[in-house]
Amino acid sequence: MTTDDEIMEATFAALCKHGYADLTMQSIADEFEKSKSLLHYHYDSKEDLIVSFMEHLLENFLEEFDEDSDAEPMDQLLRMTEIVVEGDDSEGPDDVHMALLGLRAQAPYDEALRAQQVRNDCHIRELIADIVRDGIEQGQFRDDVDPERFAAAFRSAIEGAQSHDVILGADAPTETALAGIEEYLLRGLLADGETLEGRTA
Amino acid sequence: MTTDDEIMEATFAALCKHGYADLTMQSIADEFEKSKSLLHYHYDSKEDLIVSFMEHLLENFLEEFDEDSDAEPMDQLLRMTEIVVEGDDSEGPDDVHMALLGLRAQAPYDEALRAQQVRNDCHIRELIADIVRDGIEQGQFRDDVDPERFAAAFRSAIEGAQSHDVILGADAPTETALAGIEEYLLRGLLADGETLEGRTA
Repeated sequence: MTTDDEIMEATFAALCKHGYADLTMQSIADEFEKSKSLLHYHYDSKEDLIVSFMEHLLENFLEEFDEDSDAEPMDQLLRMTEIVVEGDDSEGPDDVHMALLGLRAQAPYDEALRAQQVRNDCHIRELIADIVRDGIEQGQFRDDVDPERFAAAFRSAIEGAQSHDVILGADAPTETALAGIEEYLLRGLLADGETLEGRTA
Repeated sequence: MTTDDEIMEATFAALCKHGYADLTMQSIADEFEKSKSLLHYHYDSKEDLIVSFMEHLLENFLEEFDEDSDAEPMDQLLRMTEIVVEGDDSEGPDDVHMALLGLRAQAPYDEALRAQQVRNDCHIRELIADIVRDGIEQGQFRDDVDPERFAAAFRSAIEGAQSHDVILGADAPTETALAGIEEYLLRGLLADGETLEGRTA
């Protein structure tokens, strides 16, 4: 593991324990095996560090998602739905999603954090729009779909369902939301004769 | 205004200033015209108060939404989309939505707050499912739509778009998300020959 990876792990551990509001460079140093001066050598402040941490979360997400980039466009969107809504642990809220919820809530009060969230959001929406474009080109999706509009609605739906999963905990209607997103948002993309399972009807 | 309404106003003002993490009975008392002992007479703790405040937000939402309860089912869903995503002020994030985002982020750490959010969420999802049932009965919506599944997906989408509006601020793709929800989620409800504008094609 590189020093930077270790710093990201320490930041994540500190964030899970303290939340962003109570996060300090000291609480991150407490989770870091190496010296505090090394931490300060890499990052000037908690704000710098958290911006890098948000970039790191985006990279991790893209890496996890990209494992299956040769899949059909619809399968890619179904996979993204699962990763975003349920995360690693379908048994309950994912730790990364808990941390993300806290960081999102702080964005309106912290310009650096907001700006990084804007970059992450744009990147993911563009990724979705590109998948939709591929689906249209390959004739699997309807050619009158607007990729940007669809991407904004789909991203709202999967992130809203992710937030509900974390906020409402055991009472979250996650399975119902997943089924609804599949049935009422993704199915509408399909060109005549195509099915959600990727087989021609 | 009743004393309770004044307490709710004071809670909202204190929440906007301090956020939930730094909210105290004293900070609420500071916004309350009447005596601090009157506040304590009505509420034992900040936790009690915030649960009532969440109920109050739900009631306000239902009251605002109900103004137009004789409208066609599709018009009701379009109206809910606008109220939830944009709120009072389409020029920027709504103060109530800012407060809600902070309260949501605290729910995983505060059982009373989580339980009230579960109640609010169930109530709103049932309201959506009832509107969908009306639309099916009136022949405007497809009769193979599952009202609960649709409600969970639709609620995720509108609340996700609301969160983005607050989190990403001026860079939020709110107009695009609204157009996408209308086009790719609501339009799919329509029975053959029906249009989003409520006129038969």
